[in-house]
Amino acid sequence: MNKDLVRGNAIIGQSGGPTAVINQSLVGVIEGLRLGLHAAGIVDKIYGMRHGVKGLTKGDLIDLTTMHQDKLDLLALTPSAGLGSTRDKPDDAYCDRILEACKKHNVRYFFYIGGNDSSDTCRIVSEKAKASKYDMRCFHVPKTVDNDLMENDHTPGFPSAARFVAMACMADFLDNISLPGIKINVVMGRHAGFLTAASALARRRDREFDDVPMESSDGPQLIYCPEVAFDTEQFAADVEAIYSKKGRCHIVVSEGIQDKNHVPIGAKLIKNAQVDSHGNVQLSGSGALGDQLGDLLKEKLTPAGGKPPRVRADTFGYIQRCWPDASVIDRMEARRSGRFAAQLALHGEQDGSVAIVRTHSGSSAWLGSTQGEAYASDYKRVELSAIAAKTRHMPAEFLKGHNNVSRAFIEYCLPLVGELPGFARL
Amino acid sequence: MNKDLVRGNAIIGQSGGPTAVINQSLVGVIEGLRLGLHAAGIVDKIYGMRHGVKGLTKGDLIDLTTMHQDKLDLLALTPSAGLGSTRDKPDDAYCDRILEACKKHNVRYFFYIGGNDSSDTCRIVSEKAKASKYDMRCFHVPKTVDNDLMENDHTPGFPSAARFVAMACMADFLDNISLPGIKINVVMGRHAGFLTAASALARRRDREFDDVPMESSDGPQLIYCPEVAFDTEQFAADVEAIYSKKGRCHIVVSEGIQDKNHVPIGAKLIKNAQVDSHGNVQLSGSGALGDQLGDLLKEKLTPAGGKPPRVRADTFGYIQRCWPDASVIDRMEARRSGRFAAQLALHGEQDGSVAIVRTHSGSSAWLGSTQGEAYASDYKRVELSAIAAKTRHMPAEFLKGHNNVSRAFIEYCLPLVGELPGFARL
Repeated sequence: MNKDLVRGNAIIGQSGGPTAVINQSLVGVIEGLRLGLHAAGIVDKIYGMRHGVKGLTKGDLIDLTTMHQDKLDLLALTPSAGLGSTRDKPDDAYCDRILEACKKHNVRYFFYIGGNDSSDTCRIVSEKAKASKYDMRCFHVPKTVDNDLMENDHTPGFPSAARFVAMACMADFLDNISLPGIKINVVMGRHAGFLTAASALARRRDREFDDVPMESSDGPQLIYCPEVAFDTEQFAADVEAIYSKKGRCHIVVSEGIQDKNHVPIGAKLIKNAQVDSHGNVQLSGSGALGDQLGDLLKEKLTPAGGKPPRVRADTFGYIQRCWPDASVIDRMEARRSGRFAAQLALHGEQDGSVAIVRTHSGSSAWLGSTQGEAYASDYKRVELSAIAAKTRHMPAEFLKGHNNVSRAFIEYCLPLVGELPGFARL
Repeated sequence: MNKDLVRGNAIIGQSGGPTAVINQSLVGVIEGLRLGLHAAGIVDKIYGMRHGVKGLTKGDLIDLTTMHQDKLDLLALTPSAGLGSTRDKPDDAYCDRILEACKKHNVRYFFYIGGNDSSDTCRIVSEKAKASKYDMRCFHVPKTVDNDLMENDHTPGFPSAARFVAMACMADFLDNISLPGIKINVVMGRHAGFLTAASALARRRDREFDDVPMESSDGPQLIYCPEVAFDTEQFAADVEAIYSKKGRCHIVVSEGIQDKNHVPIGAKLIKNAQVDSHGNVQLSGSGALGDQLGDLLKEKLTPAGGKPPRVRADTFGYIQRCWPDASVIDRMEARRSGRFAAQLALHGEQDGSVAIVRTHSGSSAWLGSTQGEAYASDYKRVELSAIAAKTRHMPAEFLKGHNNVSRAFIEYCLPLVGELPGFARL
């Protein structure tokens, strides 16, 4: 036990878009505190903030100190943010109010589970506490289905969302070959294409043979990430090349695709699109992008005097981030990320963010091989400033051309999602 | 063994929108034939039609007679129509070509897995065979996520789609209370509201207490089926009544909602909506209906001089009919429906459709009670004409007012979907 530990209370909040495993992290922090600082008599109360810092500043807290372990275990399996979340982006005055609220409740350990905006809030609050000589230790626990946090091999929430996207695309490709036509699926991801790229796990034929021609690949045959400038003419030509050979085409597009000037294609299409306090224009919760791309294809691919091709567009929407059948590895890692944050506090750290490190590649997941090594990960502390308000993008080696992902990406992603169903084709 | 059995080949086809368990029925027919008529030397070859009657008329067949049981078992677990499906609606000349193709391949047992349109095809082909004195026995095996076949307690495919809708609404409601706002989910169902109604299984509080005020109920709080005329003014008033009390509202709407003149609201909204050979205007594969309803609410619920409420709309799309995690009961019943059709042939029936009968209510599924009886079902033969081209709607006792479903519906539906995840709320 570190002798510089300060006595007082702890508080935990959840922020940003919920995930299927963000409650695992919440329970992980609670368990870590109970077994450590609370057991040692350093931490007295363990509070939860209702709707993140919004509830904290209003005094809307819940006492989690003695919640029964049965309830914690069920809460951990419950998708979405059990404490409630917020999209508030605290400005300077707001952060002062956060600090005041912490002082009022004698909070000395502040845990915030969220993405890069949340870690930025954590960083500002930590600096304000230091500036006012109030000893409060601030820790960020990573969470985001977008997988766009720096320093992390991947982030809790992503593997489960990736699992949903892979399974949905698997099933939807089988639907597409059953009733052929052109099918567009729109996947979440404002700036980073990881979740869109995860759709490639739906392909089985690609896992067996390296050089399948694109039109003979299992779906999705075309994958468009926000990291590559999206050109509508090129898009129509890509689809036509496959459709003309197969009479069908299975496509996945990120909601965040941008033109060459980095203007998001989707944001322009949603009528009265809503803007959150971070300045993010609404991309989800609308089918506008898929519908518009479908209309474009109907227009471009209708033969002279002929009928337009059958085109359908689905937007996976919010269920991809909260689908209850989470990845098993994601559940474990989210829980352990929370526990690790509590351990950082126990070891006397003043602040920091938890990051996931991959220690074993998991190449045995590739093709279900018994060769290669099993997947394993560990946790490290990184500076809050290394995560805060920064965005990680798909590295170049994960992309293949302008409309596909590489084998390196599949090897990276496959161990995270857990076992995917096997399918027979006639 | 019936002595009037005719010797020859059998053929199986799949038609209409695929489901998560339509391959169970395919494998059920194959197994039933192998164990019965094929083992007895009455049926020689067991063929599959590629893309239903479309492939049959082109001679595009696959020989299933000796396919390995391992492959059949995996095929049964594979969502979507393994043989390929079709939306062709055969006219008189087309049915003549179907009969010609059957004669050419000495087909004496014709099995068609599909909905009410498919059973109509089966009926016409059967009548044409009789008229031309060609002894061919025609059997229809039920399938549809819409659950809209007459004579059936429910139809294979519906329980799995209902399971998906219930789980998606459960998770999405938790998302909605985490980041409050108005959320609309659009569910499949052209004429019948069963699948939309299944969203009510997402509620847990309603299962415990009978008289929860609507705004305090778990989501969805509002459910709109096509059986009740949809009025946009009433819709906005319903939402406002809940939103004004809770600051959030969780809504499920059928894609097939109609105004009081039976004009579908959605069909008017899809730009260049496509029409299939049955005259059905495209409702799925577009987010237009949800987006339009969302815009309506933003407009109606914006306070004078104030900001519009946060409104999001998701359209569940094709994944609801093909999601791989099928209901266990649905898997078993779809398989047994197929086997039962093969048994009808073995028993010398000339034609018929398989229908599911509920023999035990399954009231023990209610609240997970150990009281009450377990669910059980059986199969019966009904006339093709009793199913063909007819549509079953939600009975009045399954509806509650204009925007909810009754406890009777939940008692009907709950035993079919299998165990749903339990969730903790703080």
